[in-house]
Amino acid sequence: MNKKDNIVVIGAGLCGSLLALRLAQRGYKVAMYESRPDLRTTDISAGRSINLALSDRGFKALRLAGVEEKAREICIPMYGRLIHDTEGNTFASNYSGRNGEYINSISRGDLNGILLTEAENHENVTIHFNKKCTSVDIENTIVHFKDYETKEEFSVNADVVFGTDGAGSILRKSYYLERKFLFSYSQNYLTHGYKELEIPADALGKHQISKDHLHIWPRGKYMLIALPNLDGSFTVTLFLSYDEGEYNFNNLTTEEKITEFFEKEFPDALKLIPSIKDEFFNNPTGALGTVKCSPWSYKGNTLLMGDAAHAIVPFYGQGMNASFEDVTVFDEILDRCDGSWEEVFKEYQKQRKEDTDAIADLAIDNYYEMRDHVANPLFKQKRKIEMDLESNFPTEYFSKYSMVTFNDEISYSKAMKKGRAQDKALLNLIADNEVITSLDMTKEELAVVLKKVQEETNEILEEDKVAGLK
Amino acid sequence: MNKKDNIVVIGAGLCGSLLALRLAQRGYKVAMYESRPDLRTTDISAGRSINLALSDRGFKALRLAGVEEKAREICIPMYGRLIHDTEGNTFASNYSGRNGEYINSISRGDLNGILLTEAENHENVTIHFNKKCTSVDIENTIVHFKDYETKEEFSVNADVVFGTDGAGSILRKSYYLERKFLFSYSQNYLTHGYKELEIPADALGKHQISKDHLHIWPRGKYMLIALPNLDGSFTVTLFLSYDEGEYNFNNLTTEEKITEFFEKEFPDALKLIPSIKDEFFNNPTGALGTVKCSPWSYKGNTLLMGDAAHAIVPFYGQGMNASFEDVTVFDEILDRCDGSWEEVFKEYQKQRKEDTDAIADLAIDNYYEMRDHVANPLFKQKRKIEMDLESNFPTEYFSKYSMVTFNDEISYSKAMKKGRAQDKALLNLIADNEVITSLDMTKEELAVVLKKVQEETNEILEEDKVAGLK
Repeated sequence: MNKKDNIVVIGAGLCGSLLALRLAQRGYKVAMYESRPDLRTTDISAGRSINLALSDRGFKALRLAGVEEKAREICIPMYGRLIHDTEGNTFASNYSGRNGEYINSISRGDLNGILLTEAENHENVTIHFNKKCTSVDIENTIVHFKDYETKEEFSVNADVVFGTDGAGSILRKSYYLERKFLFSYSQNYLTHGYKELEIPADALGKHQISKDHLHIWPRGKYMLIALPNLDGSFTVTLFLSYDEGEYNFNNLTTEEKITEFFEKEFPDALKLIPSIKDEFFNNPTGALGTVKCSPWSYKGNTLLMGDAAHAIVPFYGQGMNASFEDVTVFDEILDRCDGSWEEVFKEYQKQRKEDTDAIADLAIDNYYEMRDHVANPLFKQKRKIEMDLESNFPTEYFSKYSMVTFNDEISYSKAMKKGRAQDKALLNLIADNEVITSLDMTKEELAVVLKKVQEETNEILEEDKVAGLK
Repeated sequence: MNKKDNIVVIGAGLCGSLLALRLAQRGYKVAMYESRPDLRTTDISAGRSINLALSDRGFKALRLAGVEEKAREICIPMYGRLIHDTEGNTFASNYSGRNGEYINSISRGDLNGILLTEAENHENVTIHFNKKCTSVDIENTIVHFKDYETKEEFSVNADVVFGTDGAGSILRKSYYLERKFLFSYSQNYLTHGYKELEIPADALGKHQISKDHLHIWPRGKYMLIALPNLDGSFTVTLFLSYDEGEYNFNNLTTEEKITEFFEKEFPDALKLIPSIKDEFFNNPTGALGTVKCSPWSYKGNTLLMGDAAHAIVPFYGQGMNASFEDVTVFDEILDRCDGSWEEVFKEYQKQRKEDTDAIADLAIDNYYEMRDHVANPLFKQKRKIEMDLESNFPTEYFSKYSMVTFNDEISYSKAMKKGRAQDKALLNLIADNEVITSLDMTKEELAVVLKKVQEETNEILEEDKVAGLK
């Protein structure tokens, strides 16, 4: 590693711009190439999630790069889920029983803009827009580009290449196609796709439904969610099967059928989405895929980071947070490792891979939880007890959701292992009537529940260990 | 589906030739294309496993096609594992506590030859050797080939195409590259590769070690196994890391180092492998990969079967059996489904996919079991009890291994679910001293163990169900 190394970052999205900024702050010179135009001056939102959930792991990385406060200024706190049933009734389910633990709705574009500006303002960074990476010669670290404006093709000779070029990464594709090593690779799609719709602000520019919540309309086979925007609108996302069930993307082809579907399943939401027909027909249907791969690096030449290394489905609200945490982890390794890039890259994957695998699996878990379980009585009892435990024993009980979302000192893999065991313990204790689940439990009663959950969780973990399960 | 349909089968390996034979027996006309020369007249064994384990699921499919007896004639029964320690001591571990349950070592080439001859003798089948499939136009069901002898390229226009072209399937690659649908796909490699060696027959043409066992030298970080051949030899396979640990494929580059490694870890085996140096340097190092994908079919045009759809690692001895069982399952669907090929293909995947996913996962489990656990005291106690339970309660207790290997009426997915729970139950009962594990247990004592294992297994399954785990 040498501060004079010619570093190329492919992709100036959320992960790439934060990485470039942080490398620049550490004294490295970075040239960043992005296929799209500058999103600060062009509207390129079509087809991508307009807002995302930002939480503790993301903030930690932003803090490291000195941009936490700028990000906080454009955040809308969401304290819990607000569940809507088909009658239009709602009930709230908090994300945490502790005060000050909430997630934040944030505009992808605005946050990316902040990071681009910070990076661009650093003397060590240059940003080149409209330059589409077409392939990477990983042996010779030569990156091939096409200029979208001039249509010219050109190549950049780098010392080190970082691929932060997202779920459809060209660097990753080059690993796959160049066949220089055994490349473990998976792309797995859910049977459902998604489509974005909009609840506009009211005439006064205010939010029409609670802006303090992430709204969910869980219906088992499909689901609608909505996250607030600063302008008073909500971005609504419909998750629906491509081709199964009575209603699916393949057969919702007429305005009548779309209206019938929404009137039956989401009547309260339908009233708030005036342009549903146009949006449904004009907005693209997105796929929901998980990408895992290994190795992430080739020698000391190239490294995949962010979605390029581990794209996940959006149901835990951790995609951006995981990519930002990549930068935190990579930075820590740069602090303690002064060997070659190759050693740094290997150490980085060694430390990081099981955590990104874990959040990918947790996000799939939450797909089922959000679709089905949030409206399930057993699950509701469990969440109620968890909130009570967290508020009464704030330093002793942490739900799986809290560990993943609000506790960046617990790795994703540890949060998954302990969180799953704890969920299993609690669900079985409730199902077997071994804990009280009355509405108003005293602290003494809750202390008994806490002890039982802890014991049962430890027993589950111990039994898995004896059985040689991970 | 029409008996006059022009059916092309790509790949005349084990699965392809059995499929072609069975389709022909049902009245379909099949043209089968194979990239290699005819293995009945050419030695093309290099680099592929010379012998394989054949068990009940495989026999069932062979029986369906009327070739079971011909296969049985070239089988060598293996009744259990024979474990070799570093001192040269051995102990046996049976595959089953019931009589008549054993696996069989069989020559891949000889079995493939039997199937080719049977297929070729059927008037509905034509076989074309040395024809390498280069790509498939899945929309128009046109298969492109190159003739390895004449070097000419040609295309075949089919009504239906079956891809039984193995782990490196060209049909599967065409799915991936044509991007006509969301194709979930994974290729995952273990950190270990494998290399084949040989224990020749003795001067009298006899086996030098027990031919009634599958031999294992488990060493944690590496493993040697040996399966008997009819000519008195054994095919030995070394499983070793590519680049980790004191000894690995990357650093075993001199005769001295290879000898040092084998003298230290496999001294008894070393004495029996006279050509170790030549074999180690000349035989290829194979990769151990798992391939899963979905969907297997495109419309009613094309279908992946066998390794092309689900390549697995060899540690459960089920690769060939799973591919043969594909043919059994497909045949059952043809019996009860008289719709279009598209319906048949969808129904086939619907019924079969979770089972091939399960055997892939079970094979990975067994990788760790064979490397580590077989020599572990807790695991040995468990196997001892399982053998006692199976011999005393032959209709009531079936180990995971028995369910997978000897009970073709239990699907792989059910065998995995129940088998894993049962293993966990038994290991925890032993670890907690809740069952007696003395050498000579009475039937009454074993009845108590059986009851406890059954109760604990059911409780584990019930607790997983409450927790929403699969």
